[in-house]
Amino acid sequence: MADPGLVTAADLEAFAAAIFRGTGMADGHAAQVAHVLVWSNLRGNDGHGVQRIARYIEIVDEGGLNPRPAMSLRLDAPGAVLIDADRAAGPISMTFAADQAMAKARAAGIGLALVRRTTHTAAIGFYTRRVAEAGMAAIAATASIPNMPYHGSRVASVSTSPLSFAVPGGERPIVLDMATSVVSLGRLAQLRRAGKTLDPGWALDAAGDATTDAAEAELPLPLGGAKGAGLSLMAECIASILTGNAILAPALSEGGAAALHRQNSFIIAIDIARFASPAAFRAGVARLATVLKALPRQAGFDDILMPGERGDRIYAERCARGIPIPPAVWADLARVAERFGVAMPARRPA
Amino acid sequence: MADPGLVTAADLEAFAAAIFRGTGMADGHAAQVAHVLVWSNLRGNDGHGVQRIARYIEIVDEGGLNPRPAMSLRLDAPGAVLIDADRAAGPISMTFAADQAMAKARAAGIGLALVRRTTHTAAIGFYTRRVAEAGMAAIAATASIPNMPYHGSRVASVSTSPLSFAVPGGERPIVLDMATSVVSLGRLAQLRRAGKTLDPGWALDAAGDATTDAAEAELPLPLGGAKGAGLSLMAECIASILTGNAILAPALSEGGAAALHRQNSFIIAIDIARFASPAAFRAGVARLATVLKALPRQAGFDDILMPGERGDRIYAERCARGIPIPPAVWADLARVAERFGVAMPARRPA
Repeated sequence: MADPGLVTAADLEAFAAAIFRGTGMADGHAAQVAHVLVWSNLRGNDGHGVQRIARYIEIVDEGGLNPRPAMSLRLDAPGAVLIDADRAAGPISMTFAADQAMAKARAAGIGLALVRRTTHTAAIGFYTRRVAEAGMAAIAATASIPNMPYHGSRVASVSTSPLSFAVPGGERPIVLDMATSVVSLGRLAQLRRAGKTLDPGWALDAAGDATTDAAEAELPLPLGGAKGAGLSLMAECIASILTGNAILAPALSEGGAAALHRQNSFIIAIDIARFASPAAFRAGVARLATVLKALPRQAGFDDILMPGERGDRIYAERCARGIPIPPAVWADLARVAERFGVAMPARRPA
Repeated sequence: MADPGLVTAADLEAFAAAIFRGTGMADGHAAQVAHVLVWSNLRGNDGHGVQRIARYIEIVDEGGLNPRPAMSLRLDAPGAVLIDADRAAGPISMTFAADQAMAKARAAGIGLALVRRTTHTAAIGFYTRRVAEAGMAAIAATASIPNMPYHGSRVASVSTSPLSFAVPGGERPIVLDMATSVVSLGRLAQLRRAGKTLDPGWALDAAGDATTDAAEAELPLPLGGAKGAGLSLMAECIASILTGNAILAPALSEGGAAALHRQNSFIIAIDIARFASPAAFRAGVARLATVLKALPRQAGFDDILMPGERGDRIYAERCARGIPIPPAVWADLARVAERFGVAMPARRPA
């Protein structure tokens, strides 16, 4: 494979923001979407990074993503809001939702932001981390179109809904960001390209039969069977049905995946300062991390990691050295750049 | 094995309540603890049923469970409370917490009850179901002493913390109640008694090495490795560290499991009526369940079940026919009954 080359985060963000401005997004919105995507690249979560730009543009073209959303509050209770995102890009609606949840938590001790009619969330851990960096705990999940079989079914019927928890920690927050599938769709694609054999229980093929051949794998199975499927079902109930914007039942009743890209989400913030000394809380989390990391390890483990710690390390490295862009992604970006008349970012050899 | 015999729920509850009154519990508390344990038996979740009575009495003897707790509100915010349970039995503190979370949710849209210094939660789904039966959505988790290795470690270092979500549904609520381990401790004990072979990745032996021999299995591994371990870590951060009652770090620093039984918990209620028509919400959940249950099934599945549906079926059957009590549990109960001078419940052949 050709040298992917490295691009600085600043250059990549400026490039991505220019593309999004090209779709008609306001400057601030374009910058925020670019920032959230590049942040994923910095953390090594490339599946949620700039490789999504081409798809975001498609979703704009299909009418799924509205570059000029008029977001509104449908309900404003002492501890909760319901946001209609008007098909905003996920980084716009979810950043707004995180801030709304925190404002409510400051007033009530806990705050909830329900988000209806949003689009691709990108890395949900960005928003829960934002809450944790502001000194609060966060819980969030996203509902989306069917791409994972419900436990026992042989067709895509629930979503690999991401679920995230975050708390402030010692030097930085601890952020759990997990798919409700055994393996994510991105990881499945990676294993397919690498021609790997899968563990039993990871995936079904296109016909809905179990397979361990990554080349045949189409549908990731839910984490722990009934557990992951149940978590995804609950994300749909709370984020979609409660906000009057059901995704799964209409999509399945229409006999296939929904035509239009659709997501709903929720984020909860808990105001730690209402319950405890923030410094004592952070010290308690740091102490727990220290104790856990010093435990005797199982064979094959060089290290015991906190949730998000691997990404923290890659983040430090990529901030210093730059972000690798694989040739296929570079080519996709070049096509989009040409369409919008944007110059490609500078890149230097890895 | 001898015929276990069947006991009616009413007889079993009256028996259990009499035992708990014997420990000094107030009548209402004794009745509530008995009710929650027998409810688990009715749902086929016998590991959280009356077989726990002997252990509850031990915890009272050890000073872990306070039969005459003076529960108090440490903090009362518009949307949140912090309850000090004064080592109350879990069914007392958690029922109170569920009701407090709902009262806050009625006022603020969302309500949080943090519970410090409680004891064995019993089935967490009892409390989330209580919230769902009152027309709200619920999220709850419990932190406890180390009984599961953190991902990568070879010793008990986090807890198999149960996590529960519940929502109102069509005929009855949909209640997800899951351990954060691959298999629960109860199920591991069951497999051990049955001499079964475990799947790889399910458990470690006493020395901390991977095993597929149920007879050797001591520690259940976390669900999805880093995911289940991360969920359990988050339960400790939110339920324990935030309430100033850390369990894991002190237990591990003291070089082993904590001497005293300890738990903390949290429960969140979301007031559906603030966001949507309750009837429309229930209809939406019922529609989704209907669509999912009608999906084409994988080989080996006779049925597609909603979270909690298996327990609903056993509940109906055991309400009608009675609850089976295995001889070993009967013998344990007889010992406790003798100590407290309580007559054993009537039992008829299965």
